Amino acid sequence: MDYQAILEEIYQEIKPHIGKGKVADYIPELAKVDPNQFAMSIVTVDGESYHVGEYQKRFSIQSISKVFTFTMALTIYSKELYKRVGVEPSGSPFNSLVQLEYEHGIPRNPFINAGAIVITDSLISHYQDEFITLENILGFIRDISDTPDININPAVAKSEMEHGFRNRALANLIKSFGNLDNDPITCVQTYFKHCAVEMSTAELARAMLYLANHGYDPLSQKEFITPTQAKRINAVMLTCGHYDASGEFAFHVGLPGKSGVGGGIVAVVPGKMGICVWSPPLNSYGNSYAGTIALELFTTKTGLSIF
Amino acid sequence: MDYQAILEEIYQEIKPHIGKGKVADYIPELAKVDPNQFAMSIVTVDGESYHVGEYQKRFSIQSISKVFTFTMALTIYSKELYKRVGVEPSGSPFNSLVQLEYEHGIPRNPFINAGAIVITDSLISHYQDEFITLENILGFIRDISDTPDININPAVAKSEMEHGFRNRALANLIKSFGNLDNDPITCVQTYFKHCAVEMSTAELARAMLYLANHGYDPLSQKEFITPTQAKRINAVMLTCGHYDASGEFAFHVGLPGKSGVGGGIVAVVPGKMGICVWSPPLNSYGNSYAGTIALELFTTKTGLSIF
Amino acid sequence: MDYQAILEEIYQEIKPHIGKGKVADYIPELAKVDPNQFAMSIVTVDGESYHVGEYQKRFSIQSISKVFTFTMALTIYSKELYKRVGVEPSGSPFNSLVQLEYEHGIPRNPFINAGAIVITDSLISHYQDEFITLENILGFIRDISDTPDININPAVAKSEMEHGFRNRALANLIKSFGNLDNDPITCVQTYFKHCAVEMSTAELARAMLYLANHGYDPLSQKEFITPTQAKRINAVMLTCGHYDASGEFAFHVGLPGKSGVGGGIVAVVPGKMGICVWSPPLNSYGNSYAGTIALELFTTKTGLSIF
Amino acid sequence: MDYQAILEEIYQEIKPHIGKGKVADYIPELAKVDPNQFAMSIVTVDGESYHVGEYQKRFSIQSISKVFTFTMALTIYSKELYKRVGVEPSGSPFNSLVQLEYEHGIPRNPFINAGAIVITDSLISHYQDEFITLENILGFIRDISDTPDININPAVAKSEMEHGFRNRALANLIKSFGNLDNDPITCVQTYFKHCAVEMSTAELARAMLYLANHGYDPLSQKEFITPTQAKRINAVMLTCGHYDASGEFAFHVGLPGKSGVGGGIVAVVPGKMGICVWSPPLNSYGNSYAGTIALELFTTKTGLSIF
Repeated sequence: MDYQAILEEIYQEIKPHIGKGKVADYIPELAKVDPNQFAMSIVTVDGESYHVGEYQKRFSIQSISKVFTFTMALTIYSKELYKRVGVEPSGSPFNSLVQLEYEHGIPRNPFINAGAIVITDSLISHYQDEFITLENILGFIRDISDTPDININPAVAKSEMEHGFRNRALANLIKSFGNLDNDPITCVQTYFKHCAVEMSTAELARAMLYLANHGYDPLSQKEFITPTQAKRINAVMLTCGHYDASGEFAFHVGLPGKSGVGGGIVAVVPGKMGICVWSPPLNSYGNSYAGTIALELFTTKTGLSIF
Repeated sequence: MDYQAILEEIYQEIKPHIGKGKVADYIPELAKVDPNQFAMSIVTVDGESYHVGEYQKRFSIQSISKVFTFTMALTIYSKELYKRVGVEPSGSPFNSLVQLEYEHGIPRNPFINAGAIVITDSLISHYQDEFITLENILGFIRDISDTPDININPAVAKSEMEHGFRNRALANLIKSFGNLDNDPITCVQTYFKHCAVEMSTAELARAMLYLANHGYDPLSQKEFITPTQAKRINAVMLTCGHYDASGEFAFHVGLPGKSGVGGGIVAVVPGKMGICVWSPPLNSYGNSYAGTIALELFTTKTGLSIF
Repeated sequence: MDYQAILEEIYQEIKPHIGKGKVADYIPELAKVDPNQFAMSIVTVDGESYHVGEYQKRFSIQSISKVFTFTMALTIYSKELYKRVGVEPSGSPFNSLVQLEYEHGIPRNPFINAGAIVITDSLISHYQDEFITLENILGFIRDISDTPDININPAVAKSEMEHGFRNRALANLIKSFGNLDNDPITCVQTYFKHCAVEMSTAELARAMLYLANHGYDPLSQKEFITPTQAKRINAVMLTCGHYDASGEFAFHVGLPGKSGVGGGIVAVVPGKMGICVWSPPLNSYGNSYAGTIALELFTTKTGLSIF
Repeated sequence: MDYQAILEEIYQEIKPHIGKGKVADYIPELAKVDPNQFAMSIVTVDGESYHVGEYQKRFSIQSISKVFTFTMALTIYSKELYKRVGVEPSGSPFNSLVQLEYEHGIPRNPFINAGAIVITDSLISHYQDEFITLENILGFIRDISDTPDININPAVAKSEMEHGFRNRALANLIKSFGNLDNDPITCVQTYFKHCAVEMSTAELARAMLYLANHGYDPLSQKEFITPTQAKRINAVMLTCGHYDASGEFAFHVGLPGKSGVGGGIVAVVPGKMGICVWSPPLNSYGNSYAGTIALELFTTKTGLSIF
C-alpha cells in the first residue's frame, strides 16, 4: 500500500475539521497552544516512515505517557501488579470516585488517572526515589523512540500541580485504602511530570514499534518486553485507551490506541506499524477531534482494523 | 495448523478444570444441568470443522443470543439505534442500575441485559408483534447456523420469567425514561425466550462464520450484513462481551467473544474462523470457568490473538 | 393564642404565592387540578378547630397515606419490621436505586416510595389479600379522621398504574432481593390505591390528633398506638417526611410533617394539635410551594417549633 | 424532676454496657484511651447542674466541634453560606464521595466532614489566617462554656494529619469544584486542630446552654446568636447530627444532638437544658455505644423527647 498517498488523502479530507473541538484549558499552559495544527506519522516494522503536517513539532504527550509507565511496571512486577490495578474498562467518568470507593481503592485499569498514579507509585517504590524514577521514565521513552533529547516541559508540570486538585483527591483516596506506598503528593507530582513529556508524532509513531512487533524493536533490535506482555498492553489499550470513548474508538477505528489531552493519539497495527496523529482541539470525550476522524479514515482506507 | 490436534491437546489439559466453578443456579431449570460437561468446536471460513467433547449436545445459549438480536437490529436500524443504546463497556455490575439512571435510561451497550432488552424492544416494534419477532429471531439463528431445527426451551424461558425480577426492574426503569416502545413485561418475556434458545458448540461455531468473514457466510453464500457492520459487532464483542471481565478476556484471550450463563462462549478469529466452547460451571464473573481457560490455551497455542 | 386570627393572617400573606410552583403532572389525573387553591386547618387536642380557604374540598392525599400504613404496620409488627425497612433519611433522589442496591433491597425509611411499598407488602401479608388490606387501610383512615365516607379515587389509581414504571422498577428490584413476600405488581397496585385516597385539610388535621396526643385520640377516646410508637412516627416524619427537603423543612418549619404530591402537607405539634395545609403546585423538591411557606409562617408567628 | 436521681439510675443501668463497642482506632492517639470510662452531665437554663461518672475528665471532642464552627459561620455569613453547604441528611457513608461529586462539591450539611471542612474554610477566609481562626474558635468555645483554659491536644491533631488521607481527598475534591477558597491542606489541618479540642462532659453540657435557650446564655447573659439561628442549629443537629444513625437517634432519643468519635455526645432539650454524655467505645455507626443508650434511657425516664 502507498501509505504516503493515503496520509496525503487523509490530510486533505481532514482539513475542514482541523480547529474544530476545544483545546484542553483546565491548565493555562495547555490552553496556550495553537488549535489549527495537525500531524500524522506512520513508522512500519520494516523501518519505513511516512508523515504529513507538523510531524516534527513536539507537543505535550500527557496520558500517552501512561502506556510507557505501564510497560515499565510490567517489566518490574508480575502478577502482584494486578492486585493493585485491574484491566477492566471503567464506565462513565462520573463513576471514577465511586468505583474507586466501591472497589476499595483498586483502580480499574492503568490508563485512568487513578490507575496511572498507582503505576507511578509502584515505579517510585522500585527506584526508591522520585527523581531517579523520572530519569528512568525519560530513559525508557528515549530508548523506545531512539531519540536522546526528549524532555519534560516544567511549566506544564507546574501548571498541572497548581490546578490538579481532582488528581490529588484521587491519590489521597487511594492512599486512604492503603494502595499507595509513597506520599500521595509525591506520586501526583511525579505523575504530572511524566505527563508533561513533549514529543512529536514522528517520535511517538517510532516509539510504538515495540508494541507493533511483539515487544521487540526491529530497528534498534532491542527486546523491551515479551510477546505476551506486548499483546496484553495492546489489549488494555483497546479496551481502556480512550476513557469513556474506548468502545466508540474500537467501534469506529478498530485499533489499540491511547489518547492524551494534548491532542495526541498513538495507535498500533499489530505486526505492521506504529501510528501517531496530533491535533490539539478535543471532542466531548477528551480525545483529539480531528485525530479521531483521521484514524477512522485510516482504517477505512486501508482495511487495517484488527476486526 | 492442525486444529484437531490442538483441540485434543486443549481437551487433555482442560480435563482437571472441568466441573470447577459454579453452575448458574438463579433459575431451577439451569441448575439441573450436569456440570461435568465440555465441548469445543471450530469452523473455518473454508468450511473445515473440528470438535472435541460433547459438541452435538445442545445447551441454553442465554446471552450469546444478544449477538444475534444486535445483528438483526443493525440490519433494520442505522444510526438512530445508537441514540437508544451505546457501545461503551459498562463498568462494575454494581453500577448497572445507577449508570442506567445517570444516563437517563440509555444502556451502555447491547450486551448488558438492559441493552439487550432495548434491542428486543426495537425488534418487537419493527415486527409489530412479539410472536412474529421470536419467529424472525429463530429464523435468523437457523439461517446463520444453517440448522433448521433450532428451538427455544420453554421450561427455561418460563423459569426465567418466574425469577427474573431484576430484569423486570431494569425494563420498567428503562420504560420510565421513555426508552421502551412496548410494554416492559412483553419485552422481558421476549428477551427471556430468545435467551432460552438451545444450540450445540458445533452449531454456534458455524453460526459465527458471518462475523469471521466480513458479514458474508462463505458456506451458504449469504450476505447477512456489511463488512463494516461485522467489524463493529466484533469490536463491541471485544470491549463488552463478557460483562465485567471483558478487559480480562481481551487481556488473556485476545479475541472478540460473547459468553452466556449456560456456560457457552463464542469467539471469532477475524478472517479465519468461528469458535465455540461450552462447559456449564461459571467463574466469579459469570463466564464459563473451563471455557475461558480453553480459549486462553487456544490463542496461546495458535498465536491467533488479534493483538 | 387566637389561632383563627393567625390562620387569617397567613392566608392574606400567602395569597401572592398561591399558584406559584408546578402541579404534579406525571399522571394526567393529577395534572387536571386547579392550581389556584389553598386551604389550611388546625385541630387541637382540646377539640377546637380552625380553618381558612377550601378546607372541605378533598384532594389526593398521595404520600401522606404512608403515615397511615406505617402506623398500621407498627401495630402489627414489632422489631422485625426494621429488618425490612430502616428509619434513616435517604439522601438525594438520584440515589434511590443505588442505595436500594447497595443496601440489598432494604429501603432506608417507610416514607420513600420503596419503603412504603415494603410496608404495603407487609400489610398484604398480614391481611392475606390485597382487597382486605385496602378495606383495612380505609377503615383505619376513617377511624382516625372520624369520617366514615373517605374513599379512593379509582381514576387517579388507574392513571398512576398506567404511568408508574419507576415504582414498578423499585418493587421488582426489592423483590429480586427477597424483601417482598407478595407479587411486586400487586404491591404497587395496592400502594397506588392507598395513595389515591381523597381527604380535605379539615379531615387530615383531625386525623393527625392521635400523633399529636401520644397515640390516643382525645376526641374519639380511642387508643390507636402507644406513646412510644407515636413519638417514633413523629421522629421519622421529622427526619424523612419531605424527601430530599426533609432537612430544609426541619430547618425552616421545625415540626414533624409529611407531604404528598397532591399538594397536601400534614404536620404535628406534639401535645397540642394536628395541622394540614393544601395547595396543589409544588416546589422543586415536590412539596407544596405555598403550603411549605404557610407552615413556616405558622411556626414563626406562633413559636410552636419543636426546637 | 430530680435529675440527680435520674442520672444515678442511668449510671447504674448503663454499667453493664460500659466498655462495650470499639474505641476509635484509626489514629493511634485516640486508640490509647481507657474504654471503661463514662460520664454524664446536665446543666439547666436555671443554672442547676447534675453529674455522674468522670464528668471533669477532658476527652477529645472531635466532631462535636462542628456545632461550634457552624454557629460561628452563621454569625458571620447569612444566606450565602447555604450556597456552599446544605442542611440535608446525607444518606449512607458509602455515598459521601459520590454525593459530593453528584452535587458538584456542595456538601449536604455542616456536620459531615466535607461540610465541616467548608465551614472551616469560610472561617479562615473571614479571619484571613488559620492561626487567628483557631484562636477565635478556641475563644468562642471558652466563651460558651465559660471556661478559659480549654485547649487543643496537639498530639491528637498531629496524629489525625498523619492518617487523615480520606479527609484530604474530600478537601481536594471540594477544591476541584471551586468550593474552597483556601489551600485544601490548610483547611484540613485547621479542621483537625479544632476537632482535637478537649473538654469534659460538665463543660460541654454547659456549652450547650446557648442552644437550649434561644441563642442567649442565661448564666453569662451573653447573646451568642438569634433565636431563629438557635432553632436552626438544633434542627440540623436533629436531622444530621449522628452520621448515618441520625434517624435512629431521633427515633430512639428524640433530641437534637451531635456525637464525636472521641465518645462524646451533646444534646439539647429546647427551653430546658444542655446534656453531655461520654464513653469512648463506639457502636457500628461511630457513635458512643453506652452514650447512645444513656440518652435513650434519659428521654424514656423523663419524657423529655421533643416528639
